Amino acid sequence: MFDSHFQTFVEAADPSLGAPRLKMLRARLKAMKLDGFLVPRADAHQNEYVAPCEERLAWLAGFTGSAGFVIALADKAALFVDGRYTIQAREQVDSTAFALVPLAEVAPADWLAKNARKGARIGYDPWLHTSGQVARFEAAAKKAGASLVAVDENPIDAIWSDRPAHPSGRVALHPPRHAGESAVKKLARVAASLKADALLVSDPHALAWAFNLRGADVAHTPIALGYALIPRKGKPRLFLEPEKLTARSKAALERLALLSPPSALPDALKDLGAKKQKLLFDAGTAPSRLTSLFTEAGGEVQTGTDPIGLMKARKNTAELAGARAAHLRDGVAMARFLCWFDKTAPRGRLTEIAAAQALETFRRESGELRDISFPTISAARAHAALPHYRVTEKSDVRIGKGVYLVDSGAQYLDGTTDVTRTLAVGSASKALLRANTLVLKGHIAIARAVFPKGTSGAQLDAFARRPLWEAGLDFDHGTGHGVGSYLSVHEGPQRISKLGGVALEPGMILSNEPGYYREGAFGIRIENLVAVETRDIKGAEREMLGFETLTVVPIDLRLIEPKLLAPEEIAWLNAYHARVRAALSPHLDATEQAWLKKATRRIRAGI
Amino acid sequence: MFDSHFQTFVEAADPSLGAPRLKMLRARLKAMKLDGFLVPRADAHQNEYVAPCEERLAWLAGFTGSAGFVIALADKAALFVDGRYTIQAREQVDSTAFALVPLAEVAPADWLAKNARKGARIGYDPWLHTSGQVARFEAAAKKAGASLVAVDENPIDAIWSDRPAHPSGRVALHPPRHAGESAVKKLARVAASLKADALLVSDPHALAWAFNLRGADVAHTPIALGYALIPRKGKPRLFLEPEKLTARSKAALERLALLSPPSALPDALKDLGAKKQKLLFDAGTAPSRLTSLFTEAGGEVQTGTDPIGLMKARKNTAELAGARAAHLRDGVAMARFLCWFDKTAPRGRLTEIAAAQALETFRRESGELRDISFPTISAARAHAALPHYRVTEKSDVRIGKGVYLVDSGAQYLDGTTDVTRTLAVGSASKALLRANTLVLKGHIAIARAVFPKGTSGAQLDAFARRPLWEAGLDFDHGTGHGVGSYLSVHEGPQRISKLGGVALEPGMILSNEPGYYREGAFGIRIENLVAVETRDIKGAEREMLGFETLTVVPIDLRLIEPKLLAPEEIAWLNAYHARVRAALSPHLDATEQAWLKKATRRIRAGI
Repeated sequence: MFDSHFQTFVEAADPSLGAPRLKMLRARLKAMKLDGFLVPRADAHQNEYVAPCEERLAWLAGFTGSAGFVIALADKAALFVDGRYTIQAREQVDSTAFALVPLAEVAPADWLAKNARKGARIGYDPWLHTSGQVARFEAAAKKAGASLVAVDENPIDAIWSDRPAHPSGRVALHPPRHAGESAVKKLARVAASLKADALLVSDPHALAWAFNLRGADVAHTPIALGYALIPRKGKPRLFLEPEKLTARSKAALERLALLSPPSALPDALKDLGAKKQKLLFDAGTAPSRLTSLFTEAGGEVQTGTDPIGLMKARKNTAELAGARAAHLRDGVAMARFLCWFDKTAPRGRLTEIAAAQALETFRRESGELRDISFPTISAARAHAALPHYRVTEKSDVRIGKGVYLVDSGAQYLDGTTDVTRTLAVGSASKALLRANTLVLKGHIAIARAVFPKGTSGAQLDAFARRPLWEAGLDFDHGTGHGVGSYLSVHEGPQRISKLGGVALEPGMILSNEPGYYREGAFGIRIENLVAVETRDIKGAEREMLGFETLTVVPIDLRLIEPKLLAPEEIAWLNAYHARVRAALSPHLDATEQAWLKKATRRIRAGI
Repeated sequence: MFDSHFQTFVEAADPSLGAPRLKMLRARLKAMKLDGFLVPRADAHQNEYVAPCEERLAWLAGFTGSAGFVIALADKAALFVDGRYTIQAREQVDSTAFALVPLAEVAPADWLAKNARKGARIGYDPWLHTSGQVARFEAAAKKAGASLVAVDENPIDAIWSDRPAHPSGRVALHPPRHAGESAVKKLARVAASLKADALLVSDPHALAWAFNLRGADVAHTPIALGYALIPRKGKPRLFLEPEKLTARSKAALERLALLSPPSALPDALKDLGAKKQKLLFDAGTAPSRLTSLFTEAGGEVQTGTDPIGLMKARKNTAELAGARAAHLRDGVAMARFLCWFDKTAPRGRLTEIAAAQALETFRRESGELRDISFPTISAARAHAALPHYRVTEKSDVRIGKGVYLVDSGAQYLDGTTDVTRTLAVGSASKALLRANTLVLKGHIAIARAVFPKGTSGAQLDAFARRPLWEAGLDFDHGTGHGVGSYLSVHEGPQRISKLGGVALEPGMILSNEPGYYREGAFGIRIENLVAVETRDIKGAEREMLGFETLTVVPIDLRLIEPKLLAPEEIAWLNAYHARVRAALSPHLDATEQAWLKKATRRIRAGI
């Protein structure tokens, strides 16, 4: 009945392949006169989701997590992973071949400084690292008396016999009714913002926004891998594989830019370098290869932040209307799922995987689902205490009684969603009720926040933590990340986190997702997406902002202790649920409507 | 009856002197083959309070504010001041000689880049700027095709005929019962923290802490101007003018360090440079002169943060006990003042200056007052809307009916205080009542805050603003600054501000002073000092911290609207006032006790 099109639950890792592949790599390195090699989990754009042909680290070491780093030396090798992935790495990787090193304790560069032999030549693929990353490794190599060597051909590609082809997902034009601003106007705004002669666009999300295009090169995010050069004056150049373009998209893009394949970019940069031009390179995504060849050609590099990031973050009226429509559609699917879950889970046979498949199916039944926006976190009891838990056939359990946490999202043409609900199966313990209510108090504090223009997410983050802090509790992730418009579900620079120094501006979409995790027992997270909006307040002396909550999905009342809520918090929850009921009810059948009515009933203090 | 020993209310500025002195300076510059000169309001330690002989900017331009910058070129000159000082600068300075430039709009370096002629030689006194400041001006000069030239003799000193002598305040040993840790132990801790071969101590506050000494070289802060070299291994060197030392202090300091006059420091640095030593220079206070001569001698400069800053910020048990005693004594003086004020002000003849003199007198009557910790802000009505208002004979007004704000502090041997109270004379308007209550809510939110170890002041700052934000209001200064222990009333690195990235640690003393300012009408600020303390919370999973409020002074109940306070806020206020009453009452006479009883009465919600 239910199935999953956009997510698998199979871990393909085979620890026994690591040692022979490492041996092959070492032989290859020897032939290249190298004593070691850096293997990041990265593509040439520092993307979060990478194409299968870029999964070099997974091929070599067996580790399939979304973040990791391998350093292979002639006599030893190490895999660096963060706290999320310690257990997974231990299961997937042959630790006699690759020492498992916690990233929080030793940075790869520091490990290299300590372990590289004097005189060693350490290779790296300059397409897969930014200049900043290379500089850190160069400093580390220098400490060891070793040197860093950029290679023209990645040695893993040479030995990876069944390496998948480069992706060639079809490029689609993003419809004007959803984009809300023409690419011509966007490109003019970008050009006008430049102090340099031109901008190298190396972030495919920025490329997608500026040219109103979407692609299908990686999972979960509709980007097309490619580059652009946007000059302060003159016609932009767009570097995309011709095979990704239809006649229609080609014609449309040619009106905006001179089209070339990505292979033409190095020569284009050399030409600009020879003309002594000054180019802005995005520090976070531009590959070291391009920065250095431009410098060598005589160009002046300005390393900074691609201005498109902030432009893209501020959604326009059409994008916000799209977000509301997407969230209504997603809320309907979520409500149908939650109604089904409440009926099914108590029977005790429902598994984490089956629940994830059901949820995707409900979303697909809208007929509008393009992809899920990230692999669903479907986590029962102690699994919910792992904020980034990803269910596999091996980890899958029956949900049974206790907490169930589901964090999921969708890609629709008009918007990207991301929602987490924590659900009760059976009766809830006092500790769980209390913790969930404290998390909800933090969530409501963000939802209700009012703040002057210029306020950053760093200034608001603690509002979400205060109720937990008063109980001696906390959570170890930010309160919210930025979200794109039919783009990445993790978008910068906007965020609600102690690291979020960027001022929040009207139109920015962010998540509001405080949580609480009790290791080995349960986990809680309550997540809605919100959009920054202006607020008219009587007597206000400043321009004030607040959040419009976009997500319309019931919050589980069975996990709330009303006595712990202040009157204004109860008022917020009741108003939210009234809005959810009014929005979703017309799209549900009679059974679902009855369920929704109960799920969104008014609560009173102390009852 | 009342008078002031530690503060004057006379503005010595005479705008007519600016033009002729600027002319003299230009003649001198011409003789030195310079086309311009930088005149910061700074001494060689970047102190907040400087000795009279360092008031070059005031002598030249007439401006006596505590922050400012002059650039004098051959054909034009500019005085840069921040928003606090716009009005004062306009009154004190001949604007035909010095263009008045708001610092917020144009930084001095940018102005120089725009206004220096090509080929111009711009002089600066390398003792009065840090290396970082010099680098910024060098970059600016380069843009203009000009160059920056360090001079050996400051041209203003050459033309300032009646320049005061260098200060030679007596150095006293800070008693062990107040310091709480021997200088031997402190110096060993500093040495052990170093990665460099030695630390150059250039901040006199750090010097005072590390050697357990106090001085009398500048107003309001008991520091001795001097330097030290603390090596990782071996005996420290202390550079102080011998004339400041008594036989006793000399003998004691000689047990800790090799004593030399400050004039011996350059040669000492050259010796270490010649030995290729690596020295840590404090980025915020080390004069460019010393950094560059050490580099030229062959030394390796490590620019960073003097580790003493953080050690000094964490007060030990003796310092915290001293702070409590100082605050009790200060609270008695404040209560006596407030009682007297309530009797005197309504008669309508009391002036801002007379009130400030009375307050200082009550403090002096303790017999323990060493100095006031900064010039008292004694501000009636619209003057209170200027957060840094300083009353002069010219600005002085009768206090009359309306708001009166008094921000003051004291230096006692056992601690430094800083307290602001906003008082009602006559009946208060609804707007004033509401605004004062919102400020109090912010104050209480900080006072009651509980937060995990590792939390910075930046994360807490918005707690103080939230009630104002909800009404569309805000204030344009940080919520709190660090405070020293019989040292500077403005101490880093701890602070409660969006810029306060340092984690708060037990023992740190900070101010808690949200405010609200309605231009031309009134100003509000409620300030107590707090000390960070550990908190035991039942069921806590993290090490939790909170604040102990040190200040014991009634908060004016006539300006509070209880309806706007939550039950826990009323509980805090009542508990605070009960504590204030119990602490102060035994030290007051019958009249004052009666006043205190009323001023600290319990309030109830809605009454």
